[in-house]
Formats: sequence, structure tokens, C-alpha cells
Amino acid sequence: MRKIIVIGIGAGDPEQVTMQAVAAINRTDVFFVLDKGEVKQELGDARQEILDRYAQGSVYRTVFGRDPERDRSSAGYVEAVDDWRRRRADVCARLIGENLDEGQTGAFLVWGDPGLYDSTLAILDDISGRGLALDVEVVPGISCVSALTARHGIALNQVGAPVQITTGRRLAEEWPPATDDVVVMLDARNAFAEYAEHPDVEIYYGAYLGMPDEILIAGPLSEVAERIVTERAEARNRKGWIMDTYLLRRPATGT
Amino acid sequence: MRKIIVIGIGAGDPEQVTMQAVAAINRTDVFFVLDKGEVKQELGDARQEILDRYAQGSVYRTVFGRDPERDRSSAGYVEAVDDWRRRRADVCARLIGENLDEGQTGAFLVWGDPGLYDSTLAILDDISGRGLALDVEVVPGISCVSALTARHGIALNQVGAPVQITTGRRLAEEWPPATDDVVVMLDARNAFAEYAEHPDVEIYYGAYLGMPDEILIAGPLSEVAERIVTERAEARNRKGWIMDTYLLRRPATGT
Repeated sequence: MRKIIVIGIGAGDPEQVTMQAVAAINRTDVFFVLDKGEVKQELGDARQEILDRYAQGSVYRTVFGRDPERDRSSAGYVEAVDDWRRRRADVCARLIGENLDEGQTGAFLVWGDPGLYDSTLAILDDISGRGLALDVEVVPGISCVSALTARHGIALNQVGAPVQITTGRRLAEEWPPATDDVVVMLDARNAFAEYAEHPDVEIYYGAYLGMPDEILIAGPLSEVAERIVTERAEARNRKGWIMDTYLLRRPATGT
Repeated sequence: MRKIIVIGIGAGDPEQVTMQAVAAINRTDVFFVLDKGEVKQELGDARQEILDRYAQGSVYRTVFGRDPERDRSSAGYVEAVDDWRRRRADVCARLIGENLDEGQTGAFLVWGDPGLYDSTLAILDDISGRGLALDVEVVPGISCVSALTARHGIALNQVGAPVQITTGRRLAEEWPPATDDVVVMLDARNAFAEYAEHPDVEIYYGAYLGMPDEILIAGPLSEVAERIVTERAEARNRKGWIMDTYLLRRPATGT
């Protein structure tokens, strides 16, 4: 049995790491990193800064695997993601098998919270299903949703009202029914712009939350949508990557 | 101008406090607590333990106000909550006005994340609207949703699928449309039991997450619903209070 801890390290600010995450970091023998290539060097540096700051005197190794590319040309989204996850599981199974001995503890550091639109847990499930016995523990992290609302100083929900967390892909299809507050993750294509004509919709946008290049934009969507499209394109081009999310809010219609 | 920090302290485990929260605690001159009465003494003790553990050498005061009762007989839910918030704002405005000098920093410690179904930010908005100038800063916390999924070792969302966060009151009315994963907060009346006949629904239930009396129950809702009803009633009677939440999941129907 090999122990794997999936450690949420918050949305980007190293101060968002919890005491529990620090303790987990200090119990870890081997950190596993799926490397997405040079453009995300900056994210790798931020992760290393967290280890430098909090792995106080503990001895650890970091091993890197090459993150396989996702097939973005495939028509079936879920199938493409499933296939990608299987290939990532191949890489991780090999990394763990070759680098972690029985009785040792491995860990994956995950931005935000490991429960929210992150595939690490699914990959570890996949590996366990192949007969490599893993004892998986999860350390929750500050999600990008909590970081977003904190930086804007707002509540996520209106009084007694629901909130939908969804993807840019789904928002582009429709505004979620029976919901006035929508948090959007993984939006590569500015799905919010579909709603820029709706006079009542407000947006609370955040990129690189808690990091030096943080971008915060809030206001009526009709007034700020264009600025968000421009600024996120500019930031993504300049840095080569972006981590962002936003809340769309319209006045509560419920009881 | 008076500074107020709203500090998320996680879902119950003192180890879930972030570095940022510890720094905020150590910048605070006065902590404000709305006291709900004796039955929640245990929660007050848990909050004090966090201060004892992390307020290292800093000098602070704690001042208590009596939390007004909510009118639970009122037909209009939003109106009743609005009225309650106004009366809580009355109490808080007096507490802050009498106990916090210009240039000092006050703080409210909030279980979970201050953005998620917590009224502190709305109360401070209300107070600012009355002319008591407040500079409000929010420190995000580990939400009970992140704590729930971490303890069950699951992801909150299915691949590319949305998640609805809602209240027990709304779930009792209907299953949120176009959503297969539903997180339920503030459910005093076992709204999940409405769906116990649906053969495909799974539940991941957690109470007192990360605390010594933690209760975790997961499984097909049809099989475990009765046990959850019994255990939460028993725990609430024994302890006088409960903090709990759950995820209902059915197989993803979307693409």
C-alpha cells in the first residue's frame, strides 16, 4: 500500500496554504508533478516557492512526468477528457510505481481545491482500479471561487438563493435554468460575452487571484465585457497561461 | 475609517486555518462575536481554541453581542432574513462603534468561507450604508463544501458537468433543473428524504466536518437516508447544535 496525499494549496497566494497542507507537505517523501511544458514555468516556480517556504527541514524529492496533450479536435468532450485522463493515469502510474516505495508517502499539489474541476482524484481512482493499491487522502484547499468572492468582497450567493458552478462551454449553450448566480470555470472562449446585451447582469471577474499579476474587474457586464475580453487576451499572450474565473449575477428572481 | 477583517477559519478543524488567516488574526485588535446562547458553547470553545493556538503573543480583546432571534414564523423567507440581518446589523454597529477606535482593526471569525451562506458581509454592508465608515477585507476560508468532498475523497463535479449549491428549503421544492450534482446547505428538515425513492441518487453526507464528533455517511440514498435522519437527529439532540451539509449525485445525463 502506498500513501498519496492530494494537497490543495489555494488559488495562488502562498499565504492561502492551510496548516493542514503544511503538515501534509512535511509528511511527504515524493512530490509528483505533471509538467505542462515551458509556458507554465511561472506556475512551477510558484509551487516550488510553497515547498521552499513550508517544507521546513523535511527531506523530499520531486519527480516530473510529461503531461500528455488533450485531443481538442474530438467531437465528444467527455470521451476526449476520459481518454486524456487515462493517458495521464498511465504517466502517473509509472511515476508512482518507479519512485514511491511501499510505506512511503507521495503527494500531488493542486491549485485551488482538489474537489473542484481538477482531475487528480479521477486519475488516482483510475490507477487504483489497475491494481496499484493506493491509500488516498485529500487536504482541502481555498478554491478559486472563495478567492474570487473574497477579493471582490462579496458573498457568492444571494439570500437563500442557489448558485450554479459550471463551465464556459455550458454557459455558452444556455444560462443555467432557475439560477441567478453562476460561477464559471474553464472558460477559454469568453462565454460571458453571450450575455453582454442583458442589462441586469453583473460580472465579478478575477485572474491570477492572489498572485502579483492579479486582475480584478467588476461591473455591469454590458459595460465591462469588452475590457475583460481584451485584458485576458493580453495577459494570456504575455504570460502564456491564465488561471481565471468569474461570477455572473442577476437580481434574484426567486422567493 | 475603521478596518474590519472577515476571516474564514475553515469548516471546523483548527488545522484548516490558512497562513493568511493567522496573519489576519495577529493584526486584529478586537474580535467581535455574535453569541447565539449557551447551546453553542462548544462552537465558541472551538473558536477560542483557534485564537489560543494562532494569536501568538498579540494583544487582543473579544467583545460579545447577543445575536437576535430570527422570526421563523414569518411567511416571507427573504423578508424575515432581511429583518434579521437589520437587527443583527444594529447589534454589530453598536459593538463596533463602542469598542473599535479609528485606526484600529476589528475582525469577525467565520466558520467555513465568508462568501458561502454567511451573513457577515451583508451585515457590514448594511452598517456601512448607515454612515459608519468601514474598510472591509475578506480572508477566504476552507468551505464546508471543500471539507465535505475532501473527507469523502471525491470530486464535487462530474467531468465537465455543473454543480448546484442550494438550500434544503429549495431542494424540498424541486431537484434543480439541468443539474445532476447538488450540494445542500442549511437543511433543517431532511429535504434529501424527498428523493429517497430515486434508485440512482447517491448521497455524501457530513456533519461536524473535521471535528471530534464528525459524522460521515455515503451510499445510495435509498439505503442510507433513514440512517442519516436518525443520526443527525440524535447528534443534534445530544449536542444542541449541528453544522452539516451533503452532496446528492445522480449519473451525469449531459454530454
